[in-house]
Amino acid sequence: MNYRSVIKVLGFLLLVTSACLVLPALVSLAYRETDWPYFLAATGIGVLLGGGTLLVLRDAPDLRVREGFAVVAFGWICVGLLGALPFWLSGQVPSFTDAAFESISGFTTTGASILTDIEGCSHGMLFWRAMTHWLGGMGIVLLALAILPLLGVGGMQLFRAEVPGPVAERLTPRIRETAKILWGVYVLLTAAEILALLLAGMGLFDAVCHSFATMATGGFSNHNSSVGGYASPAVEWVIIVFMFLAGANFSLHFLALKGKWRVYFRDEEFKFYGTIILVCTSMIMATLVPIHFYPHWGEAFRRSLFQVVSILTTTGFGTADYLIWPPLAHGLLLVLMAVGGCAGSTGGGIKVMRVLILLKHAKLELRKMLHPRGVFTLWFNGRAISSSLQTNVLGFFLLYMMVYVGGVLILTMGGRDLVTSVGATAATLGNIGPGLGLVGPASNYSTLLDWEKWLLVMFMVIGRLELFTVLVLFLPGAWRKS
Amino acid sequence: MNYRSVIKVLGFLLLVTSACLVLPALVSLAYRETDWPYFLAATGIGVLLGGGTLLVLRDAPDLRVREGFAVVAFGWICVGLLGALPFWLSGQVPSFTDAAFESISGFTTTGASILTDIEGCSHGMLFWRAMTHWLGGMGIVLLALAILPLLGVGGMQLFRAEVPGPVAERLTPRIRETAKILWGVYVLLTAAEILALLLAGMGLFDAVCHSFATMATGGFSNHNSSVGGYASPAVEWVIIVFMFLAGANFSLHFLALKGKWRVYFRDEEFKFYGTIILVCTSMIMATLVPIHFYPHWGEAFRRSLFQVVSILTTTGFGTADYLIWPPLAHGLLLVLMAVGGCAGSTGGGIKVMRVLILLKHAKLELRKMLHPRGVFTLWFNGRAISSSLQTNVLGFFLLYMMVYVGGVLILTMGGRDLVTSVGATAATLGNIGPGLGLVGPASNYSTLLDWEKWLLVMFMVIGRLELFTVLVLFLPGAWRKS
Repeated sequence: MNYRSVIKVLGFLLLVTSACLVLPALVSLAYRETDWPYFLAATGIGVLLGGGTLLVLRDAPDLRVREGFAVVAFGWICVGLLGALPFWLSGQVPSFTDAAFESISGFTTTGASILTDIEGCSHGMLFWRAMTHWLGGMGIVLLALAILPLLGVGGMQLFRAEVPGPVAERLTPRIRETAKILWGVYVLLTAAEILALLLAGMGLFDAVCHSFATMATGGFSNHNSSVGGYASPAVEWVIIVFMFLAGANFSLHFLALKGKWRVYFRDEEFKFYGTIILVCTSMIMATLVPIHFYPHWGEAFRRSLFQVVSILTTTGFGTADYLIWPPLAHGLLLVLMAVGGCAGSTGGGIKVMRVLILLKHAKLELRKMLHPRGVFTLWFNGRAISSSLQTNVLGFFLLYMMVYVGGVLILTMGGRDLVTSVGATAATLGNIGPGLGLVGPASNYSTLLDWEKWLLVMFMVIGRLELFTVLVLFLPGAWRKS
Repeated sequence: MNYRSVIKVLGFLLLVTSACLVLPALVSLAYRETDWPYFLAATGIGVLLGGGTLLVLRDAPDLRVREGFAVVAFGWICVGLLGALPFWLSGQVPSFTDAAFESISGFTTTGASILTDIEGCSHGMLFWRAMTHWLGGMGIVLLALAILPLLGVGGMQLFRAEVPGPVAERLTPRIRETAKILWGVYVLLTAAEILALLLAGMGLFDAVCHSFATMATGGFSNHNSSVGGYASPAVEWVIIVFMFLAGANFSLHFLALKGKWRVYFRDEEFKFYGTIILVCTSMIMATLVPIHFYPHWGEAFRRSLFQVVSILTTTGFGTADYLIWPPLAHGLLLVLMAVGGCAGSTGGGIKVMRVLILLKHAKLELRKMLHPRGVFTLWFNGRAISSSLQTNVLGFFLLYMMVYVGGVLILTMGGRDLVTSVGATAATLGNIGPGLGLVGPASNYSTLLDWEKWLLVMFMVIGRLELFTVLVLFLPGAWRKS
């Protein structure tokens, strides 16, 4: 690995983040709040570190694929740590661990929070908190559709530009061009949501923050009681629609915006994504309606749908405490946490595409038992999936389960109860936010111990960067000088 | 599928079971109890059904591989139902669902019980209960080492006789010969355990029953409080040793008995099996000792080791209520439930061999990321594992997780809490016995609803027969006439 190339790019990322930190300072000034210097201080530190690095390493060679892993993993961490500074310096989050947790939770679009009094935060801080989501989401869109395919991460090769198919055929293969196109879609959808939330009666500031958090499938809200705090069905419906869009493949949106909206109905992953939502919502409703949990079935429908979409897309907004729902919701939402959004969305988790390939693979394996000499092909979106790609997806699933189990064991070893450990691991590894038990939707991560918070931060990063990208760095071979 | 061939073999299996039912009748007579007629009634029904079938279908063609799946799955169910008759006819288990649960739990060597007052049962019934384990264990040894390799089930091909290697090289390839050899080992170990338990101070009847339950990794005990009820460290140590042996590959024992005891130290699976036990025992001890859960660290060691071996081998005997241990035990034992015994043992679960192959595969996948053009070989016990066999093992893991998740969802849908649902599914699918929550080691399955019991019976059978064997029957193609 060429360390100098890696560090040079990290410097560049710090510089970009520093520039972004000017925005919350302006928000702070606009609201006549006193904490704008902390944002500018963070900007200063970022410019010093980032700019200095770039100057010193200006002739470091360009990146190669192998260094991509290190850049992605450390990039998210460095940016997250810089982003933690305003929270910490201003004293609004007195512990650096907590500040880093909140910031990395933001940049990984997890949305797990340690803030116990969100409404007591300044506008600048709330804006920066939402912005970490939005910037993280931008990074993820680029990562999923332009960088990971080049690195060959668990099934993402399906998006590799040279492979013909509904996803890649229309996207310009070069990363820079891809970025421009996808970010265009991302900005456009965010703007549309801001407008829709304004029409639903939300104020401008909250509308912007919630749109940032929705499009990134993050989940930070400006209310202690999350989206439920607005007590507005119109707001909930708007957010349901945009969470759904944010959890779908962004290249489909791009094609749809170019007039080819039929791609939605031709894409197997998208259809399966819709089916999961409908089936799970119906199942949860079927346990809520008979016991008259909500006064009207319409409300039961809206709340079930909101929670299913929020968890499946890994957003993590809440309008209800699903822990007091009948047990099916606990089991089902725990499964949805692992499934996650579509590939090429800002959602986390295993991804709908991979789950679909796994289901098809399982059926194929059974058919092979009956016809040991038969030759079977796994079809996805009209193309044959090679057996090496199937193995890659199976390997991803395996690693996901291993990290999951490892996380639960470490947390229980520290004395945390089983349900909280499972919930916290699932919710951070899948980048959801709220989990089960102590870290359920009605509480947050503030009561955890410092080492537990850092462990969960690690899961957020591992989950967000599709496991392989981070885990590969644990191999000694990754660090060999070249 | 040729139904007549399948039914003919089922008839034969019923006939064998009928013959076995004479033994508990003799036990009943020996103890001057009055329930011997119920065993003979079951014998009569079995002879009538089995003998009649054999007579009618005596010229049905021989079995082919494809019919093997149906024979194995329905064989276990038919034998289990016949075995339920004495419990039910005698009125000692008034509900047929409960009787079938107990009997199939026995034959699948699960050891999950619905009996609330075990000590109130007659000697004949307790003997039959233990015998269902022992017979089931015999079936499993044969299935794992002689039948499944022929059917090509998830990695069991490693045992296929034509493949050279430490496992298969010394075993006569024909099923009949293999059966004789393995059953010899099985009988010998059972006899050794009976002797050891007698020396440890247990009575003959209990020694026989517990040896049956240990060698089959079943877990039915004659005490309401399981092995803990004997309050004898000597008994516990004997059972620890024999559970450990029963959870190891029987072909290793065969080779060891022939003087080649070094095979244990050359077998990767066996070494990993030992390592898991040592590591997990130490981890649990590390949470028990600091809080002085037991008066002495020696007792903490014995109880941790007993529980780890009991759960990993999927026996399910208890000497402690692990639900009141610190949380690590819950997480760790839940993981061990899924891992299970060694391949070729009477233990259930995913199997140590498969887990080891999965771990190696995960590492390989990561290395592939660093060297996309590299060629990697997965070595197991000194031989290269083909990529199709790796995929087969991955497929097994995938199916296991799918059935697991499906089970939890169905149980929670019925209103059962998440922890109990997870525990009950894990404990029946892995053929362990005690689970978590309501079905923990200090309670049993009696309070569950009838449909839940049948669902769990299905999981016992699916888990016991290595998933593929049963699940393949859900494919329409399996039923096509040939």
